[in-house]
Amino acid sequence: MDRTETLRPLTAEFLGSLLLAAVVIGSGIMAQRLSPDDVGLQLLENAFATALGLGVLILLLQPISGAHFNPVVTLADAFLTRAWRRVAPFAAAQIVGCIAGAILANAMFAAPIAWSTTERATPAHLLSEIIATAGLVLVIFVLARTGRGALAPVAVGAYIGAAYFFTASTSFANPAITIGRMFSDTFAGIAPASAPGFVIAQLIGGALGLAITVWLTPKHAD
Amino acid sequence: MDRTETLRPLTAEFLGSLLLAAVVIGSGIMAQRLSPDDVGLQLLENAFATALGLGVLILLLQPISGAHFNPVVTLADAFLTRAWRRVAPFAAAQIVGCIAGAILANAMFAAPIAWSTTERATPAHLLSEIIATAGLVLVIFVLARTGRGALAPVAVGAYIGAAYFFTASTSFANPAITIGRMFSDTFAGIAPASAPGFVIAQLIGGALGLAITVWLTPKHAD
Amino acid sequence: MDRTETLRPLTAEFLGSLLLAAVVIGSGIMAQRLSPDDVGLQLLENAFATALGLGVLILLLQPISGAHFNPVVTLADAFLTRAWRRVAPFAAAQIVGCIAGAILANAMFAAPIAWSTTERATPAHLLSEIIATAGLVLVIFVLARTGRGALAPVAVGAYIGAAYFFTASTSFANPAITIGRMFSDTFAGIAPASAPGFVIAQLIGGALGLAITVWLTPKHAD
Amino acid sequence: MDRTETLRPLTAEFLGSLLLAAVVIGSGIMAQRLSPDDVGLQLLENAFATALGLGVLILLLQPISGAHFNPVVTLADAFLTRAWRRVAPFAAAQIVGCIAGAILANAMFAAPIAWSTTERATPAHLLSEIIATAGLVLVIFVLARTGRGALAPVAVGAYIGAAYFFTASTSFANPAITIGRMFSDTFAGIAPASAPGFVIAQLIGGALGLAITVWLTPKHAD
Repeated sequence: MDRTETLRPLTAEFLGSLLLAAVVIGSGIMAQRLSPDDVGLQLLENAFATALGLGVLILLLQPISGAHFNPVVTLADAFLTRAWRRVAPFAAAQIVGCIAGAILANAMFAAPIAWSTTERATPAHLLSEIIATAGLVLVIFVLARTGRGALAPVAVGAYIGAAYFFTASTSFANPAITIGRMFSDTFAGIAPASAPGFVIAQLIGGALGLAITVWLTPKHAD
Repeated sequence: MDRTETLRPLTAEFLGSLLLAAVVIGSGIMAQRLSPDDVGLQLLENAFATALGLGVLILLLQPISGAHFNPVVTLADAFLTRAWRRVAPFAAAQIVGCIAGAILANAMFAAPIAWSTTERATPAHLLSEIIATAGLVLVIFVLARTGRGALAPVAVGAYIGAAYFFTASTSFANPAITIGRMFSDTFAGIAPASAPGFVIAQLIGGALGLAITVWLTPKHAD
Repeated sequence: MDRTETLRPLTAEFLGSLLLAAVVIGSGIMAQRLSPDDVGLQLLENAFATALGLGVLILLLQPISGAHFNPVVTLADAFLTRAWRRVAPFAAAQIVGCIAGAILANAMFAAPIAWSTTERATPAHLLSEIIATAGLVLVIFVLARTGRGALAPVAVGAYIGAAYFFTASTSFANPAITIGRMFSDTFAGIAPASAPGFVIAQLIGGALGLAITVWLTPKHAD
Repeated sequence: MDRTETLRPLTAEFLGSLLLAAVVIGSGIMAQRLSPDDVGLQLLENAFATALGLGVLILLLQPISGAHFNPVVTLADAFLTRAWRRVAPFAAAQIVGCIAGAILANAMFAAPIAWSTTERATPAHLLSEIIATAGLVLVIFVLARTGRGALAPVAVGAYIGAAYFFTASTSFANPAITIGRMFSDTFAGIAPASAPGFVIAQLIGGALGLAITVWLTPKHAD
């Protein structure tokens, strides 16, 4: 495997994370600007765009890198497949990608780059992030371990579309996107002071989701 | 079959029912809080999240327990497949799961646990529940009996998304979720006094749906 | 083939048309009641429910009767497959089904049965019905003639969801549902005086769609 | 190959482009008229109809012409497959089709044919068009080059549904539809003075998307 073959999955993780952050934050800005009178409608527009966009990105890049776009998913995958060596480079590509995507979204909407001022770290939001991330890991790895990983694009897109509404935190469920969202003082942003709590809750949720996955699907089916 | 193999489907029914109730009630609370000025928009947000979330849960847990999450479905299945022995434990897991999911949803939104005060037992709502449940049973078992059970995740999610709007009761169609919704004094709740009527209507609807299913698909195709 | 085998497809057409009319009119009533301040939002709720419900009904009943629910589709099918004998009984089942569905929808919402008073027969609406029906026939029969009839549930549901918005008439595209909608003085109704014009436009559109279909797909692929 | 066989793909491109423009502009007019108080809701209705309608059109016409409906896609395809000879006739059919579709949409809504007066050519919008078109080309050709072109109807429909919200320009991403939209002084229109900038941005985006596609998927898989 030459150098290009090593770089290709990293590029896919970078590009997918960049576009995911652009979709999440860009559609958040659009929704906030065009539907100023109803925050629920803003969230519906944001969820509609994110569910569709995330599903397409996973479909596209799944054969190239697995389409994680999320350090918790890469970590959970390493627990199951011993692919520890790629955790650090994947996580780096995901975080840098999400920051770049936030900057791109701000540029597309001529919005200033600024730290978000949206405080989110309440106990209810942290519980929400634990549940949201546990559910995400459950969806991805129950499908993978029952030989149905090809359904992940639809299932993960649909799951996140639902989770935007059924969790109080609107389901970030991803440390890389949490970091990226710090760079946009808009609807979809998160104040830097709230980010560490979110990331810790996501790691706890990921571990919980992984434990339930392994109990439900003891035998690997692929 | 050891004890773990017996417990796994029960856990799947419990977990699926818990998450289903969390999706239904959680997204109801979110919609009510964020879109206070338009109840139709609240219902659209609630239906969007429920259709996607329910579809994902069925996809995930179908290979483990059949993904009923609903005593009427378990009963109808027992009529068709003679699986009578699992009716009681499945129903118990579904009901306890839905109550736990209601409590989780309230916790994620820092809402108090309280009996719902939403009275719903009008004749029009009871007729709606008969139709809603008959349709649900028809969808699940016509697909199963024509060898297309793998399409149930999409079909049931889509059906419930439509039924939220085309029935006056917003289509509970499930005794377990009806009981769970008693524990949330929010948009998606139901007053305990209205619950028995809903459950009876759902049982009638289930029997009606089963009768039509058997007439339409006389030969089992799997 | 005994009597039951002859009755089964007719029952499927009756039941599917009944449920289709209940979905279209029921969700129209719900939308009108819950979102009184924005007609566009009413139509979005109506289109969301109809696209999902219609898709599920076609999926369910396609193996039993072909899932036409529409005299124009049955006629176009007869042109292509010489199944002329079933046109009259199918059309009767579809029309009676749609009327029954309208009555059921009114009953579920405790709405009075009354002739619709919504006048719709403007030149722009009639042109819309020609285009809407031509497109519907094109979708169904191009798929059928290229060996992809199994995709009709998703394709027809999606097409009608779009056509509710891109035609001025909100795309009835179906004489049976046009007749059924006369029996509901609500959002989704049509005044009896407007119905004949709609039906004629739908027949013209069906012929146009059929002509384009045959030109585009000269060789039958099944 | 006789003359008819040559004409059929051109007709498919003309018809698909006509119907695509009718969907985009027609649903834009409907949304603007019915939801005058919230531009975000207008865009949600427009995106809902466009995502569904575009997906159906690609599904339908993909076996006949490839279902490009877009000169940038035809050009990118020519780069990859050396099909240079059809670029000019396809582009002509697409542009004439989109203009005809704009006229049809105006006729269905009894709206006057008039030049659009919506100025759109800001730097943020041009950047948006580069990103929107690069993403579109990426979706289509990564799927094609990994042997999954049959998923294009769903993937492209979903992508455009998302891109309406995550780009500031609402993602035209298509020179033919840009030209067609000049002929409608409504929600979905674009002033003629803004069109050249959009087309140049789309060509740049197409080249960018193609470069990324080739790097990500070096070996052709079909």
